[in-house]
Amino acid sequence: MSFRTIEWRDNSVIMIDQTLLPSEEVYNTYTDFKSVAEAIRGMVIRGAPAIGVAAAMGIALGAREIIADTHESFFRQLENVCETMARTRPTAVNLFWAIERMKRVADANRAKGLDRIRDILKKEAIRVEEEDLTICRNIGKWGATLIPEGAAILTHCNAGGLATAGYGTALGVIRAAHEMGKKIQVFADETRPWLQGARLTAWELLKEGIPTTLISDNMAGFFMNRGEISCCVVGADRIAANGDTANKIGTYSVAVLAKENNIPFYVAAPVSTLDLSLSDGSQIPIEERPASEVTHIKGVPIAPEGIKVRNPAFDVTPASYISAIITENGIVSGDYRKGLRKVAAP
Amino acid sequence: MSFRTIEWRDNSVIMIDQTLLPSEEVYNTYTDFKSVAEAIRGMVIRGAPAIGVAAAMGIALGAREIIADTHESFFRQLENVCETMARTRPTAVNLFWAIERMKRVADANRAKGLDRIRDILKKEAIRVEEEDLTICRNIGKWGATLIPEGAAILTHCNAGGLATAGYGTALGVIRAAHEMGKKIQVFADETRPWLQGARLTAWELLKEGIPTTLISDNMAGFFMNRGEISCCVVGADRIAANGDTANKIGTYSVAVLAKENNIPFYVAAPVSTLDLSLSDGSQIPIEERPASEVTHIKGVPIAPEGIKVRNPAFDVTPASYISAIITENGIVSGDYRKGLRKVAAP
Repeated sequence: MSFRTIEWRDNSVIMIDQTLLPSEEVYNTYTDFKSVAEAIRGMVIRGAPAIGVAAAMGIALGAREIIADTHESFFRQLENVCETMARTRPTAVNLFWAIERMKRVADANRAKGLDRIRDILKKEAIRVEEEDLTICRNIGKWGATLIPEGAAILTHCNAGGLATAGYGTALGVIRAAHEMGKKIQVFADETRPWLQGARLTAWELLKEGIPTTLISDNMAGFFMNRGEISCCVVGADRIAANGDTANKIGTYSVAVLAKENNIPFYVAAPVSTLDLSLSDGSQIPIEERPASEVTHIKGVPIAPEGIKVRNPAFDVTPASYISAIITENGIVSGDYRKGLRKVAAP
Repeated sequence: MSFRTIEWRDNSVIMIDQTLLPSEEVYNTYTDFKSVAEAIRGMVIRGAPAIGVAAAMGIALGAREIIADTHESFFRQLENVCETMARTRPTAVNLFWAIERMKRVADANRAKGLDRIRDILKKEAIRVEEEDLTICRNIGKWGATLIPEGAAILTHCNAGGLATAGYGTALGVIRAAHEMGKKIQVFADETRPWLQGARLTAWELLKEGIPTTLISDNMAGFFMNRGEISCCVVGADRIAANGDTANKIGTYSVAVLAKENNIPFYVAAPVSTLDLSLSDGSQIPIEERPASEVTHIKGVPIAPEGIKVRNPAFDVTPASYISAIITENGIVSGDYRKGLRKVAAP
C-alpha cells in the first residue's frame, strides 16, 4: 500500500487526513487523546475497523497524559479517557470493542507499575493495528473465493485500506481477487453525503491499478438492471446476532436492488464488528450527522438556505438481503445466528 | 408562482437560468434559435415539458431569423432549425413532440405569406406554453385525489414549475394536494449528479411554503423502510406504450424500494410524454452526460483525477413497479397499453 491510514510513531499517532483526500495527502500528528477523539468525530479517520484502531491508540496516548499519584487515580482518569472515546460516534461497534479491549488489558495488569501499564497499553494499541491488517488479508482470502473471474463488483462507501489499518474489508476482498489474477473491475458508488466512494475508494483503487468506474449512488440500480454488475461487496459498522447489518447510508438500497436483480450481496467485516448482544438490527443506534454535510460540498452551498435536512449516516440491511457475511474466520450464510456465533469464537 | 420558467417577450425568449439556482436568480434573454438549442443542451432549461416549450419557442425564433426569397428556401431552412433542436437531448420525447407540432402548423399554413407563417409559429409556441400550464393544473387535480391527508411524499429530481411552463407535474400533484388543505410534507431526493432536487425542488417548495426535507438519494430507502414515506410521485421523460417510464437516473431505484416497502409509486406526466410508437421501455434512448457532472460540483473536484466515470442521465422504470400514471386526461393503472391509448386520444 502506498499510504498509511494510521500508525503509532514516537509516542504520537499519525493519521492521513481523510477529510482532505483526494485533493491533498496530509498526515496529521496527534499527541493527546482529546484531539484523537476530535479526529474520530470529525472523520479525519473513519471506517469501523480504523475507528477501533484510533480509539485504542487514543487511549494509549491518554494513559501517557494522566498525572496520577495512585493507581486509583490513574484508573479513574483512564475511565474518563475511555468515556471520551466512547462518545465520539455511536454506530460502529469496533469503537466500543477496542475500548473494552484496552480496559481489559489495563485491568489485567493493575498490579504493575503505572509506567509499565502505560507501556502495555501502547503495545496493545499497536497490536490492534497489526492484527487488523492480518484480519483484512484473511477476509480477502475467504472473500476472493466468491468473486467470479471477470466480475464487475459494485461497492458502496469505502471499506478499504483507509477504513482499516490497511488492505480493507470489502476492498480487501477486491484486492485479493485482483492479486489472484482474476480480471475484475469495480463500480464505486460515490456515497453521498460525505463522498467516501468518490474521494476515498476511487483514490485507493486508482493507486492500486484496479479498473474502477465511479457512479452516483442512484445509478447502481441502472447498471444492475442492465446486467452490468456481477456482485456487490460492502463493509459493515455493526452486525447483530441475526445478521442484520448496519453500514453506510445507502447500503440497504444497494441490497434491495441486488435482490431484485438476483445479484449476490456480500458483507465483509472482521468479527470485531459483530455485536451478538443485539438480537436484531432494530437495536443498532443510528448516528445522524450535521445538515451541512448534505447542504454543502467542500464549503460550497448546493441547496437553498433554510431547507430542512435529515442526515442519517447509516442504515440497517436485514439479513434476508445478505447472501453471505465474510469474516477472517470464514464465510457465514444461511443460519446467521448459528454461523456468526461460530466465527466469533472459532 | 413567484418565478417564470420560460416566456416569450418582445420577440425574444426569457428563461430563468437553472444552472445557477438556488444561489442566483438570473433571467437570460435569447434572440436566436442556436442559443436556445445551447440552453437546452446545457440545461439552462430542463424537464421534459419545459424542454418542449423551449423547443417550440426556439423554432419560432428560428423562423424569424430565416432570410428567404421563396417558400421552398424558408421551409428548407426551417427544417434545419428543427434538426438543430432535435439534436439537443435524446431522451425526453416532449422535445420531438413539440418539434413535430411546430412543423405540422407550418405545413398547414404553407399557402400563407412568410411573415404570416412566422407569426403563426410564434403564436403556436406561446400556445404550447399556455396549454402546458393548464395541463399541469389538471394533472394536479387528478393526482391530488391519490394523496392521503397527512401524507409524506417522496419525490425525485424536479418535476416542478421549473420543469414545465409552471406548476409542475409531480410537484403539480403536490401543489394541488397542498392547495386542497391536505397537511402534506415532502421528502426531496437531492438527485445527483445535477442536484435538481437540492437546487430546484427544495427551492420551489420552500418558496411555496410546503414543508420539505432534503435528503441524499441513498437515504430514500432508509425512510421508506422506517415507514416515514406514504407514497412516491415523480415526473417522466418518456413513457412507452406498455407504461415503462424513462425518468431521471435513480427513479428506477426509488420504484424498486417503494415496491419492496409496499408504498405506492406514481408517475405524473402530460400525454405529450407518451411515446406509443415504442412498445416498451427498452427502446427509449438513454442520454449519457459528461463525466465532469459526477467528478465536479460547482467546479470543485470531488474525485481523483483520471477516474473513469459513467453518467447515464435517465433510467427506465418497468411498468410493473408503477402504481398509476397520472395525466391531464385521467389516471391510468392496471392495463397500461389500453389505458394510455385512451388518455392519449380521449
